[in-house]
Amino acid sequence: MKLQAVPTNPGMEDWIAERAQRVDACLQQMLPVEQVEPAQLHAAMRWASVGAGKRVRACMVYAAGSACLAGTADASLQRALDQAACAVELVHAYSLIHDDLPCMDDDSMRRGKPATHVEFGEAMALLAGDAMQPLAFEWLSEMPISPALVVQSVHTLAYAIGSQGMAGGQAVDLLSTGQVLDEVSLAQMHAKKTGSLLAACAQLGAIIVGAGSAQRESLRSYSRAIGLAFQVVDDVLDVTVGSEQLGKTAGKDAAAQKATYVSLMGVDGATAYARELYQQACDAIVIFGRRGDYLRGLADFIVQRAY
Amino acid sequence: MKLQAVPTNPGMEDWIAERAQRVDACLQQMLPVEQVEPAQLHAAMRWASVGAGKRVRACMVYAAGSACLAGTADASLQRALDQAACAVELVHAYSLIHDDLPCMDDDSMRRGKPATHVEFGEAMALLAGDAMQPLAFEWLSEMPISPALVVQSVHTLAYAIGSQGMAGGQAVDLLSTGQVLDEVSLAQMHAKKTGSLLAACAQLGAIIVGAGSAQRESLRSYSRAIGLAFQVVDDVLDVTVGSEQLGKTAGKDAAAQKATYVSLMGVDGATAYARELYQQACDAIVIFGRRGDYLRGLADFIVQRAY
Repeated sequence: MKLQAVPTNPGMEDWIAERAQRVDACLQQMLPVEQVEPAQLHAAMRWASVGAGKRVRACMVYAAGSACLAGTADASLQRALDQAACAVELVHAYSLIHDDLPCMDDDSMRRGKPATHVEFGEAMALLAGDAMQPLAFEWLSEMPISPALVVQSVHTLAYAIGSQGMAGGQAVDLLSTGQVLDEVSLAQMHAKKTGSLLAACAQLGAIIVGAGSAQRESLRSYSRAIGLAFQVVDDVLDVTVGSEQLGKTAGKDAAAQKATYVSLMGVDGATAYARELYQQACDAIVIFGRRGDYLRGLADFIVQRAY
Repeated sequence: MKLQAVPTNPGMEDWIAERAQRVDACLQQMLPVEQVEPAQLHAAMRWASVGAGKRVRACMVYAAGSACLAGTADASLQRALDQAACAVELVHAYSLIHDDLPCMDDDSMRRGKPATHVEFGEAMALLAGDAMQPLAFEWLSEMPISPALVVQSVHTLAYAIGSQGMAGGQAVDLLSTGQVLDEVSLAQMHAKKTGSLLAACAQLGAIIVGAGSAQRESLRSYSRAIGLAFQVVDDVLDVTVGSEQLGKTAGKDAAAQKATYVSLMGVDGATAYARELYQQACDAIVIFGRRGDYLRGLADFIVQRAY
C-alpha cells in the first residue's frame, strides 16, 4: 500500500531494521533458555517471540524515548528502554498465541510459520502465553531507573493490556463477530484491542526518560491516531495482499463476517482515511521538532508498510 | 483430615473467616463492574474470583505482614496488604480458570459451581484469565507504600507465577501425566505449581511492612514446608472426600494416572508426611514469637482443613 502524498524518510527503514535486530538480540538473551526446565515451555515462549515480527511496538518505545530526551540516553536509560521494548514485544507475542488458539480465531499460521499451538499443542501454547505476561512485568521491574518511574511503567502496561485495554478489545471483537459494527464501535474496539498497547509503548518510552506532561499528552494524541491508522492499514492489507506475503492467513476477517474499515469504507476510502490519520499523528508531534523524526518515520512505516 | 497431634488455635477459624470476608469485600469493590463494557468479560472475571475459595493465599499475605510488623499496621499499610491480598487471589483465580479449560484439565465444576468456561464459553474464560493477570499487577502498582517496595513486590509476584514458578509447574504437571514421577520430581513440580505463589504471598506481606532479611528467610523456610503440606493434604482429600464437599471434581488425579503423594505413600503415609511438614513450618517461624501466631494458625488450618 503506497500513499504517494506521504513523504518518505530515507534513513528510517535502516533504523527500524537495526532496532528490530537489537530487540531480537535482547529477547534471545533475556528469555529463559530451552536447556532450563520446563524445556518445552521455554521452547514455546521462544518460538512465539524470537526472530520474527515487525517490532513496531518496540520501535514505538525507542522513538518516544528519543523524542522526549534532550541529549542522548546513557547506558542505564538505554538498558531500561531495551527492557521495556522487550516487555511490550513479549506481551504482543503472548496475545498472538492466545488469539490463534482454536477457541479464539483458530489460526494455524503466524509470522510465516506454524502457530504456537500447532507446533506445541494447545495446552503448552496456553501456558506459554500465561508465562510471558508476568515475564514482561518482571523485565519492567528490573529497569535501572528510579523506582517511582518503574511503578508508573508497570501501571501503564498493566492497564493497557487488561479488561479496559487489549484483553477487553479482544472480548469486544469476539462478541461482535457476525454483527454489523458502525464506525464508532469499530474504532472503540480497535482503540482497546490494538491502540492501547501501542499507546502504552509510547508512554513507556516517555516515562523512562522522564518526560513532562505536555510531551506525554502529545504522544497520547499521536498514538491514538497512529494506532487507528495501523488497524485501517491492516484491514486494507488483509484484502489486497496474499497470505504468504502477510505471514498469516489473509481474508479471515471477511470470511468471519467481521466488520472492517474496508467493509465500511471500501479499499479507497480506507486508504484515504489512513492518510488522514497519518496527518493527525504528524500534527500531534510538532512540539518535538527534529527529535520527533523517528516518531514521524514510524508513522510513515505504519501507513506505507510492505510485509 | 484430622491430625490429632496438631494443637488447634481457637481464634484462628474466626480470623480466617474475617480475612476471607474482607478480601471478598475488597475484590467486590476493586474489580470492574458488569455495567462497564465489556460486560461479559467483567462478569466472567467476577464469577471466577468473588464469593468463594478459602482465601488461604490472602491470609498468608496478612499473616506474614502481621508477623513482621512490631506495632499495628496504619491505614496505608492495611490498604497495601489488602491490595496485595486481592492481587494474589486474582492470580490464583485466573490460574484455576485456565486450568479448568478443555485443553488443560477439562474440569466443569469449580468452587461448587460451573467452571468459568462452562458458564461463559471457552474464549471468554481464556480472556477473563488473561485480563486478571495484569489487573493483579495494576493493584500492586497502586499500593500506598514506597515505590522501591512496590517494585520488589511486582518482581516477587511476577517471578513466582512465570515459567520458573506457577506456569512452569503447570507445564511440568502437563508433561508428566501418565508418567510415574518419583518423590523428588513430584516435590519439584508442586514447589513450582502451588508452592511458589504461596511463598510469594508470604514475601509480599513481609515486603509491604518492610521486613528484614532474617524475617524474610524464615518465611521462605516456612512457606516451602507449608506449600508442600498444602499439596500433600490436597492429594489426601482428593481420595477421601467427595466432589460435593470438595467443590470440584474429586478423584481426577487418580483417573488421569497422575502421580500423587497418596499414590507414592498411601493415605496414612501422606497424612504422616503432612504432619512432619507442619512441624517444619512451625520450627521455621519461632523467631517471630507470638507475632507468628497467625502463621502457625494458618499452618494448622492447611493441614487440618475441612472444605
